[in-house]
Amino acid sequence: MTNKMTTQPYKGSRDFYPEDMKIRNFIFDTWKKVCKSYGYEEYDGPFIESFELYAAKSGEELVNEQLYSFEDRGKRKVAIRPEMTPTLARMVASKINELPKPIRWFSIANFWRYEKPQRGRGREFFQLNLDMFGIEGVEADLEVISTSVDILKSFGAKETMFEVRFNNRRLADDIYRNLGLSTEQKKLVNKALDKKLKISQEEFNSWLKDDAKLSNLELKSLNDYLENPMPMVNQLVPKSKGAQEVVKLTELINNQGLSMFVKFDPTIIRGLDYYTGNVFEVYDLNPQNIRAIAGGGRYDDLVTVFGKDKLTGTGYAMGDITLKDFLKGWNLLPKFESECEYLITLWPSEDPKFLKKELEISKILRNNGLNVQTWLENNTKLEKQLKYADKKGCKYVIIIGENELKDNLVTIKNLKDSTQETKPLEKFISDIK
Amino acid sequence: MTNKMTTQPYKGSRDFYPEDMKIRNFIFDTWKKVCKSYGYEEYDGPFIESFELYAAKSGEELVNEQLYSFEDRGKRKVAIRPEMTPTLARMVASKINELPKPIRWFSIANFWRYEKPQRGRGREFFQLNLDMFGIEGVEADLEVISTSVDILKSFGAKETMFEVRFNNRRLADDIYRNLGLSTEQKKLVNKALDKKLKISQEEFNSWLKDDAKLSNLELKSLNDYLENPMPMVNQLVPKSKGAQEVVKLTELINNQGLSMFVKFDPTIIRGLDYYTGNVFEVYDLNPQNIRAIAGGGRYDDLVTVFGKDKLTGTGYAMGDITLKDFLKGWNLLPKFESECEYLITLWPSEDPKFLKKELEISKILRNNGLNVQTWLENNTKLEKQLKYADKKGCKYVIIIGENELKDNLVTIKNLKDSTQETKPLEKFISDIK
Repeated sequence: MTNKMTTQPYKGSRDFYPEDMKIRNFIFDTWKKVCKSYGYEEYDGPFIESFELYAAKSGEELVNEQLYSFEDRGKRKVAIRPEMTPTLARMVASKINELPKPIRWFSIANFWRYEKPQRGRGREFFQLNLDMFGIEGVEADLEVISTSVDILKSFGAKETMFEVRFNNRRLADDIYRNLGLSTEQKKLVNKALDKKLKISQEEFNSWLKDDAKLSNLELKSLNDYLENPMPMVNQLVPKSKGAQEVVKLTELINNQGLSMFVKFDPTIIRGLDYYTGNVFEVYDLNPQNIRAIAGGGRYDDLVTVFGKDKLTGTGYAMGDITLKDFLKGWNLLPKFESECEYLITLWPSEDPKFLKKELEISKILRNNGLNVQTWLENNTKLEKQLKYADKKGCKYVIIIGENELKDNLVTIKNLKDSTQETKPLEKFISDIK
Repeated sequence: MTNKMTTQPYKGSRDFYPEDMKIRNFIFDTWKKVCKSYGYEEYDGPFIESFELYAAKSGEELVNEQLYSFEDRGKRKVAIRPEMTPTLARMVASKINELPKPIRWFSIANFWRYEKPQRGRGREFFQLNLDMFGIEGVEADLEVISTSVDILKSFGAKETMFEVRFNNRRLADDIYRNLGLSTEQKKLVNKALDKKLKISQEEFNSWLKDDAKLSNLELKSLNDYLENPMPMVNQLVPKSKGAQEVVKLTELINNQGLSMFVKFDPTIIRGLDYYTGNVFEVYDLNPQNIRAIAGGGRYDDLVTVFGKDKLTGTGYAMGDITLKDFLKGWNLLPKFESECEYLITLWPSEDPKFLKKELEISKILRNNGLNVQTWLENNTKLEKQLKYADKKGCKYVIIIGENELKDNLVTIKNLKDSTQETKPLEKFISDIK
């Protein structure tokens, strides 16, 4: 080929070299550990689903602007998953009668959305999805929120670093009804709230006046509510299920000692259509990284599109890219140690007895659970082999030269403290056991 | 919606319910453990790449018949990865000067090919990819083959259950040249060899006579060679690099005590174009499952398409579907224990003090590294809660009733042996530590 190809990955996607993979595995392992500690079981679904699955349940923006969809060779319209929830609902619906309730599930999977790549956002990203089905009470919302707090705490995060902000879709509806807004106006108010964090108060007001056609009085009432929401929430309690849910959840949060992490915030709406009750987002408090790390809420009607009985659900997703930015920003990423424990060098000679001994010792070390690299090129100067061990961060180098071979010895070089000792192979083996 | 959607996954793909996920994780964890024990480092690449990457380096059948390719919203022609090697070559080429050699890398990733779903073959599958770059000698081939043997042994497989069969592309070329075959004939012979295991000797012969136009003498020589290859291999040694490589690899295999697992087999060819030296496949010896579990070999020119210096590589892929069939066929899949250690029940009462205590104890257990599920529904009969614990295979159930709460006790039910004891909370906590 004369026209050389680029070595760059596709726009918005990432190569995970071993050093990147260590960070990814560190994040995934921490996710897994916390999910399992709450009794959540891991699942996964296919990377491609029918287009209809997303058309039926994901938000409009997702489907119309961000979905990677195409026709397969059999003329089926398919799509690459942009989120997990539709797949999850399909899987739960498929075995709805067999699965003991509540269902506690999590998955860690990759997703694609056609977006303009920017800080905190790629076209390919990974997400933890954690969901519980079958519990209608806000106790379930409390639990899923607790897992998100515990995850961040497991990474070493403190209360000054993040905040969970929750609201309630049913409450928001009742508030808007109380203010006398129409269905169309509600939609536009939600849209404005979704952007509130990124725009000025004036911009926000003009959106509401010009687009949503709120009167001055309505606008004032709404802003009063946003500024000091609890009086109106409390006033609505007798007739609003949403208000009751918010009051109950607040109480549980206080009881659990979680109030320094979790706050009621009437501006939290969540873009996707399927939410019904409490919704929440986890925010990085680092001013350099204002995107949400996680978000989710309660959805009560998801499995009904499959013709199944209603099964209530609650859960959230946490993305790997914003989480990594969060961890970096607060200096919570550990320094990863090299996984190379031993390099066994090959004596600079063609004599096959050296290779034989080298591989024999490697095998013994591996059988004892150690990570071992062997030098496989003949006639390489020891210096070069040691330099490689150093670059790879190996802890020890084993040298088997003429003398070692003759007397059944090994020379062990400790690269950390630059010490070296020679001992009988038998002794070395019994020492590592 | 009146038209209810199907709950079936897309054709050829799989849903991984928690019980399936346990098997998948068991396989992945074993793969990882062995790869790391040889010093291989984990990497991953994007799920979508430019179409050109595969057009340049994957085999024709893969690109023309099996690739999931489409245009993105920016009119770029892209494809879902059908194999890892092109991505790997791109990533290595991109950092070719920074990476210390040899490079030992592995990845576990999912791939898509448009194929007719059948036993041992899905459209979505996972593969382990293990590769080493920078070592030209067959010692590197020996190592990658050893890892495949060690992986199967780690699953508990014995020498009667599988066999690694190797051949050499350079040797095959020299053999064909020795037999006087043209380039076109070589190609057709390779194609016939690739199918040999699945067709009769007569069919094989007629392919070679009718399609490859081999004379009776050529056919006889070829069949003689296939039946008893070593005389011709040995005869070619002085002038054939391929023959030398086979003889050397055989010697190393014998030295390593691997000859009961690894055999020379002149019918092994491998479909993909990029192989240059030794090639091998791992076969299940179970007559019910004759597909290869793994396959790979040496490729010397892969990174040159990116305009980089030649960097020799050797490696293989092992698929999850055939491996699972292998493990099932030989009864090597373990019975997975439930991961639920504790269910903390909720006393059938609305009094919030029970929930509070329940969550307090859960937290203590979790902080001690235990997996804990909590019952979150008020007013549920204890019987129902116990039934759930039983279905989920929980080891213990913790009950906190009126008496327990009053005297700060917990009642622990052991579901394995149906015993039960009540003790002070303090004592319970110190016991689990």
